[in-house]
Order: sequence, then C-alpha cells, then structure tokens
Amino acid sequence: MASDPPRNVIIVGGVAGGMSAATRARRLDEHCSITVFERGPYVSYANCGIPYALGGVIKSDAALVLQTPQALKDRFNINVRANTEVLSINRMKRTVEVKSAGSETVETVPYDRLILAMGAEPFRPPIEGIDSPNVFMLQTIPDLQKIRAFQVEHNCKQVAIIGGGFIGLEVADSLRELGLEISIIEYAPHVFPPLDADMAEPLHTEIRRNKVKLFLNARIQNIEAPKDGTRGCVKLEDGQSVQSDLVLVMVGIRARTKIAEEAGLKIGKTGVSVNHHLQTSDHNIYAVGDMVETENRIVGHPMQLALAGPANRQGRLAADNIFGRKVAYRGNVGTSACKVFDLTVASVGLSVRALKQMGLDPSWVTVHPPDHAGYYPGSHAITLKLAFEKKTGRILGAQAIGTSGVDKRIDVLATAMQAGLTVFDLEHLELAYAPPYGSAKDPVNMAGFVASNVLRGDVEIVHPEYLKNEPADVQILDVRSPSEYSGGHLDKALNIPLNDVRDNLAKLDKGRRIMVYCGVGYRGYVAYRILKQLGYEVVNLDGGYKSVVQGGYAGVQK
Amino acid sequence: MASDPPRNVIIVGGVAGGMSAATRARRLDEHCSITVFERGPYVSYANCGIPYALGGVIKSDAALVLQTPQALKDRFNINVRANTEVLSINRMKRTVEVKSAGSETVETVPYDRLILAMGAEPFRPPIEGIDSPNVFMLQTIPDLQKIRAFQVEHNCKQVAIIGGGFIGLEVADSLRELGLEISIIEYAPHVFPPLDADMAEPLHTEIRRNKVKLFLNARIQNIEAPKDGTRGCVKLEDGQSVQSDLVLVMVGIRARTKIAEEAGLKIGKTGVSVNHHLQTSDHNIYAVGDMVETENRIVGHPMQLALAGPANRQGRLAADNIFGRKVAYRGNVGTSACKVFDLTVASVGLSVRALKQMGLDPSWVTVHPPDHAGYYPGSHAITLKLAFEKKTGRILGAQAIGTSGVDKRIDVLATAMQAGLTVFDLEHLELAYAPPYGSAKDPVNMAGFVASNVLRGDVEIVHPEYLKNEPADVQILDVRSPSEYSGGHLDKALNIPLNDVRDNLAKLDKGRRIMVYCGVGYRGYVAYRILKQLGYEVVNLDGGYKSVVQGGYAGVQK
Repeated sequence: MASDPPRNVIIVGGVAGGMSAATRARRLDEHCSITVFERGPYVSYANCGIPYALGGVIKSDAALVLQTPQALKDRFNINVRANTEVLSINRMKRTVEVKSAGSETVETVPYDRLILAMGAEPFRPPIEGIDSPNVFMLQTIPDLQKIRAFQVEHNCKQVAIIGGGFIGLEVADSLRELGLEISIIEYAPHVFPPLDADMAEPLHTEIRRNKVKLFLNARIQNIEAPKDGTRGCVKLEDGQSVQSDLVLVMVGIRARTKIAEEAGLKIGKTGVSVNHHLQTSDHNIYAVGDMVETENRIVGHPMQLALAGPANRQGRLAADNIFGRKVAYRGNVGTSACKVFDLTVASVGLSVRALKQMGLDPSWVTVHPPDHAGYYPGSHAITLKLAFEKKTGRILGAQAIGTSGVDKRIDVLATAMQAGLTVFDLEHLELAYAPPYGSAKDPVNMAGFVASNVLRGDVEIVHPEYLKNEPADVQILDVRSPSEYSGGHLDKALNIPLNDVRDNLAKLDKGRRIMVYCGVGYRGYVAYRILKQLGYEVVNLDGGYKSVVQGGYAGVQK
Repeated sequence: MASDPPRNVIIVGGVAGGMSAATRARRLDEHCSITVFERGPYVSYANCGIPYALGGVIKSDAALVLQTPQALKDRFNINVRANTEVLSINRMKRTVEVKSAGSETVETVPYDRLILAMGAEPFRPPIEGIDSPNVFMLQTIPDLQKIRAFQVEHNCKQVAIIGGGFIGLEVADSLRELGLEISIIEYAPHVFPPLDADMAEPLHTEIRRNKVKLFLNARIQNIEAPKDGTRGCVKLEDGQSVQSDLVLVMVGIRARTKIAEEAGLKIGKTGVSVNHHLQTSDHNIYAVGDMVETENRIVGHPMQLALAGPANRQGRLAADNIFGRKVAYRGNVGTSACKVFDLTVASVGLSVRALKQMGLDPSWVTVHPPDHAGYYPGSHAITLKLAFEKKTGRILGAQAIGTSGVDKRIDVLATAMQAGLTVFDLEHLELAYAPPYGSAKDPVNMAGFVASNVLRGDVEIVHPEYLKNEPADVQILDVRSPSEYSGGHLDKALNIPLNDVRDNLAKLDKGRRIMVYCGVGYRGYVAYRILKQLGYEVVNLDGGYKSVVQGGYAGVQK
C-alpha cells in the first residue's frame, strides 16, 4: 500500500503544520500534485507574531505573511486555495468536499493522501455579553485587523484581557506600547499555567510594575458593552468592575476535530489521535499541529500541545512518512518561552503541580544564580526550578524566570531531557563560560549540584511550603549577615552568620530539629554540612529567603 | 588504602580548581585539616574577569576577589597561606617544602593527600625586547595593577596586543572603553584559534570596524621600548612598525609542571597526566585545572584545555574522589564563548581544520538563520557551522558567530554532544520558541536539517573552498532575485530566480554539472531538489553567497 508514492496530496490548512507538510512534500517529490485548502485569506503566515502586530511592536502586518499563494505556486508548484473551506471527508471514495467563500458550489476533490492541519479554535467561554461588539478573539490576521480597526474607530483606551496565558501576556506586553490602560482577568490563582504558583509570582510583580491591573481567581459575571456614552466593563462576581472599551478573550483553544470526527476518525481526549507517524486511524489520512494530540514524553501518554515548533516538525514528518520515509515523531516535552515586559519566563516538561496532579511524587530544587558572572556589569539573578524523579534523577520539568539568559537555560535543559540525561549529568555538563554570558558554574550546573546533593543524601531540603505547617519545635536558623537579617527574615529565626556558626554551637539545641536558611540556599547548605556532621538534625530551606519572598509565601517579618 | 578518609589535605594553588577542591573537601568532611598554599597575594579570585578590569568595564578590582583567607578560615575552616610557594614534593615522606615570600625559611609540611592546582604560566615568546619595561603579561591581579599603573604613569595611548586569542580579544574589547589606540598582532592567519578561518573572518571585520588595527600572519622582529622622547613600537619582519607605548603579550600558556616533574610524576604532552579520577601517577596526589591534560571527548585522547569551568569541576571531583566518592571526570568538549565588541563568538568541539589535522574526514554545513523570528524587531543572523562524522552523524564540533543568541546555540549543541546526540537528533530537538527568542525552526534545528539532508543523500553540497579549484565545465546558477544578483554575485553565474527555475530549464545544459547557490543555502537546496529530480547533475553551495562573502573567499563579482 505504501509502495507507490502518492500522486495527489491534499492538505487542509495552510499555516504552520500544513505549509511545512506541503513544502516538504514538494522537496521530496517534484512530480506529485499538492493542493492546500485554507479557509482564511492568508496562508503561511506567522501567527505567533500576531500579538506583537496588535501593539505595533511589529510595524507591518505584511511582515507576518511569509508566502503568497502565487509565490507558493511558482516556487513549490503547490496549488493553494485560500478562502476555501473543507466541509467533509469521504474516506471510502477518498475525496473531500470543499466550498469557496462567497460561492454556493460544493466541489468534490479526490486525494491519495490527506493531511489535516486545521489547527484549533479559540475557546469561547459561555459568558453573558461575550457577543457584544467590543469583544474579540485573536487568532488570525483578519482578527487582528478587526480589533485594530475597532480600537481606532472607538478610540478605545481601556482594554480587558480575559486569560493570562501566553497570548494574553504577549498581548498585554505589546499593547502597553500603545499607552493603553490594560487589565488582565485570570480565572486561575496565577498567570501562565505551565508554571507553579511560586514561579508565577514574580510575573505578577512585573505585570503590576508595568501598571497593568491584574485580577486573579477572577469569576466573571458578565461583560457590559459601552453604550450611550457609558463605558464598557467586565463585571466580576466579587463586585469589582473592570473598565474596558475593548475586551479580548484568550482563554485557550479547542482542537478543530469536527470533520475528522464526522469522518469517523479516532479522536482522543483533546484532539485527533495519531500514531508516531502522524497517521490517523485511516492510513491514508495524516493529521498534525494543534488539532492532534501527541505523546507527552514526560508522562508517556497523549496530551494537547499548541506550539508552532512541534506543529512545523509534525508537518515535515507527515510528508516524510507519506513519501516512504518511516520517521517517527518523538513526542513533546513542551518547551516554551514568553516575554513579559522586562522578564523572560520559560519552561519545559511539567510543573510540580501538574506532576502531582498526575499522581507522581517528584522532588524539586530552586536556585537563584546570576545569569552571568556577578562581577561583570548587568548581571541579574535567574530563578530556576528543576523537578526530577526521586529514584532515578530523571528530569521531569524546569521553569525559569529572569531578565536574560532564561531561554538559554531552558533550551539546554530541554535538550538534556530529550537526550535522557539525569540531574547527575547536569553536574558534569560543560557549558560556555565567559563573564558576559555565564559563570564557571552555570545555573544549569548549579541546579544539577543541588538536585544531586538531595538525591545522594548530602543535604535534606524543605521547600517554602513547609513554612505553612512548620512543626512548632523546629529551630529556625538564619545564617545570613546581620544586615541581611535586619532587612527582613523569617518569623522566630535566630541569626548566626555562617562564618560564626562553628563558634556559636552553644546557641543551638542539639535535641531539636534545625531548619537553616540563607539568601538563596548555598550558605544554608554549607551550614547544613557543618551541623549535620556534628550530629545535629538539620534541614536546609530550598532557594533560601529569596524563594520565600519572591514566591509570595507567608511567615516573613520585617 | 582509600578506606580511611584523609585527615590532612594539602592543596597547591588557591584559584579556580584549587579553591573548588578545598571548599568541596570541607563540605564533605568537617573534620579533616585543609591547607591551601597560594604563591600570589590573592586567593579565590575571578581571573576570567581580569581583562575586563583592565579596561574598567569592571570598575573595581575588589569585585574580582571572591573570598579572603580570613573568610575562608571562618566559613570553611580552611587554612589559606597566601604568598607562599610550594617548592617541591617528597612523595616518599608525603611532604611538601614551602617558602613564604620574604622569608628564607623552608618549611616541611606533611600531607595525606595532595591536590596540585597550580595553573599555567603565560608563555613568554623569545622576542628581542620582550624584557623592556613597557612589556607585560596579564594573568593575576598584581599583573593587572602593574599594567594599569604603568599605563597611567606613562600616559600610554597606544597599546599593542601580541596574540589574538581569547584573552587578547577580551583585552582589546575592554581597553577600547578607555579610548586607547589598539593594535592586535597575530602570528596565525586569523584570530581566535578554535575557529576555522572562514568563521574568524567576521571577527576581523568587527575588530577593524572598532578601529583596532589588526596584523595577521605577523612575524615580530623586535620590540622597541619608548626612550628619550621616541615612541615605542613593535617591529614586524615585513617592515611594518606598530606604534605602542604599552605592549601586552598574550600568546598562550604552558602548564606549570615543574615540581610535578621533579617529583617524578607522569607528565603528558601538554601537562600533568591524570586518570579519570584526577589522580596522578602517585595515588596520593591529584592534579586539576590548567596544569593537567584531560581527555578531549571528540578525539578520545588527552589535550590541554585552559578553561575555568572544567578547572572548577575537576577541583570538585578531585575532592569527591579523595573522600571516597568514585566519580569519573568525563573529559572535555571545549565549550567556550567570547565577546568581541558587538559580536559573540562561541564554539564547542573541534574546528574542521583541527579535525582534518588529526586525520579525520568530517562533513560540515554552515547556516545563517536569524537569532529570532525575522518579523520581530532586532533580529540578526547567526552563522553556525556544524562538523560531524560522515558515517554516523556524530557531532564533532560547532562554531557560531552573531550579535545575540550565539552562546545559547553553542550551549545546546554542547549539551547534545555530551549526550551523544547526532545531527539526526537535532532535527527533532524541541526548543523554546517565542518571536523575541527564536524561530519555530531554531538555528540548531536548521543545522540539523541540512546536515541530515547531506548524510541521507537528499542534497549534495560543496563548500566555498570548492570555488578555488572549481572545474571549468561547471555551470554556476544563482537562484536569487535579480536585485540580489546585481548587488554582487559569483563570477560567471547565470541568474534564474528560484521561482522561475521550472520555466527556464532550457537555459541549463543537462550534460554539465550545475553548482547552484542562493543567499544562505535554502533556495539553492529547493532548486537542487527540483533539478535533481528532473535528472540534472547538481550540487548546492553550502551557506550560499553569504558564506562566500563573509568567509572572505575569492571569485566574487560586483
């Protein structure tokens, strides 16, 4: 069946995954017919740039359009039919029914192989008032242009963004450039769902520092459109009213599975099911990108993932497989990054919260090393949280936040994860060091040291969460300097600077457990090693006082 | 023999490797005696910062000193003896002879375990005039202070840097901040020896753009010191005279092996020999850092490597091994980065030239993708050259240059190399993509695509070197746009823009080989695929016209 190359490939969807499949197919086979149907007016556009075009960070929408149908015809001999929707698949006859915008005619088009790359639909939450004329979703270039026209026409000054995920944050960052008043309304306790709450907390600080109003744990009652001179608003159940001439709804997506489902293809929990060759339950039909669910490599089962990198790769691999190259898609680790004003946040794998929700029992460590040598100008701390398997040291996830060098460390960790490295391997990793770029011990090495120390039993740590239910008889030992201590410390903490610990053992009760902490964890670890070897029962506070303060934990005294 | 933990550890050398060993030893064992001898006045200082302190990029020398002897005593209970030189080792008696500066007394100090971390000596080339008072080498904080004092006292305006390696380039970059006139005099055909010549060429452009004079292939005749109102200079054999009040010599290093050699320890080609546990030929003596030679993982045999990251790691591991943890040092891949004015250059593994010199026959590819999405502001090309094994796709080396995101890609590739990934794995690598940080197809993926295409036979490439001895009967096909073509092109190139190739086949001679090229290689590859499948004999020029121009190859017509 797979022996003859197909002579006629039909692709549904002309953006990331679909267009990667189309161009790869042509490079592999000069002779077959390739047709792409795209329901929108544009193909091959950079949808990841749309939030930035809205705020004018990207000056011209044309910069987002990478290829025109004509150029795709000329360069790749691909037939691109924009404004043309695929209505249904007839698997028996191997045809699709298509209809062009503005036409009543339904055409029947045959295929040898079909690639579905239809993406996902922005989710439209059932909120009263969501159909108001000032409420928009943002996915395509026409969406972008409609919003911009509305904003200009109505001279909107106040924008409410419903949803604090990737797109919501990028839009907020981008719209600030226009000098608009912005509010972010998030249902969850924190923005950016791939993060743990403690890692999202610095984002909240950054968002507020940029004068964006932030409503967390927000339950929307209704949206009220501007009318007869009154301003519009989003009403929350707690009685707050978020002024907004313009409301942007960006609360996630739903895979476009309708025609696949109607054609009887196997559908998973969050999208079309595909095997490792991106093949659906019909071996002549492949599916890629946001509409499918592919294996999450951390947990080993399928999960939805709406990222452009994997979509492009899947498109390429679907074409490979169609043209006789049996290449397996390896699944996803979910590597992502986002600029949030002056901060970068990035993550790979799963958060500690997500791992726990899946019934796993991960260990994790948090470090706050400088992005590059502290003595070279412009150095800033990165907070890096690393989750790993207790038994093996297998890396399960990493989250990082800071002003620079953040995406680098997550890409290194993503590579390490995909290569099957453990936290023990991170200790040995040789990374580029020059004072403007890193340190002799890179943040990735540092996280590896701490994680390995934990797994080898060289240190026992507790996390700031521990402070919530801290046993009453624990001695809290702050080994920072007196000036650091007086600038803020944990409740009931005794201050003995690290360098004085050996001479002040008499102040500690050998019969009671000691929780030691310092600024970021290192001095606490050194104190731990001293005390432990002298017979004290001791734990070190992971990430130190900085983790407590930055993560928004209680129990701090000024 | 290794059963009892040592009670008395002596460490010779108190900077990177030595101090890492000392502090790790204390964390592992609270009870043993640890003594560090350092012949200079400072310990635990950041010698990588010294070039930047010279130019005032780092404002205060104090910022370079990470720990004082007193703090090391207080915090780690380490006895630090600065200004104290170790003269010899008596292996039979397990003692070292030491002498403090200014003292005549030679002390005999016993050890259970000895760690040598003596570093390397700046190489002093046998040049006439090198002993002139205005000639300096730069390794320590006292060196730094002497140079600075001389420069101020003599109001030096013209500085000649002999040697265009890491340190020479960092010093040039840093000194430019002071507004001095700088010359770099390099013996080799290009600066930055870990690079291939074509990758060093953009550095030459950047150096000259910053008004630093660059003398390549330079043979020094003698150094003339300023005298009686005449200015000093460095005279070259070709008759050129490089004006210089101040001459800085930074032409590499030699491992400090003298006392190890005198003690009869095994010495390799470039430094003290150690096993994977950093143990010398005497099992009670360990050695780490710039004075040892450790395995280069690419070629599998020992090579010298003077980098702070490996030195620190080796120090830590020596202490691990001494205290009963049998941890193997994994060898080096030579990951490094350097800031050269507005450019970053970074590399890992070996250059194509070095690989060939070792008798290997590598393949390589060069790509020039943007550091982040081209439609997002501030995007600049990275040039990334990837060398790999023909049979297996094993990664042998990578070099990158650009204005940002360069160190990130090299760190990702360094991680991939250390994990044993191949170029085929790079195709699949999932890296963080958001428009400010990357592209859906990251530069690392791109290099992986091209390399894999070559190995799978999907494309045959030639490198710009091919142009030097280009067969006369080859047709050269430029598939760029007419305006790109008219801005400069290869000699004798026929211009058929890619999108017109299918309609202009008649212009090509099917009986003659075609060398196709474009701007950076991608359009050439698409043209290759079209022509190859239509029966033409064709090769694509790797890296395109940009590689030719940027790499300084001939055969270009304007």
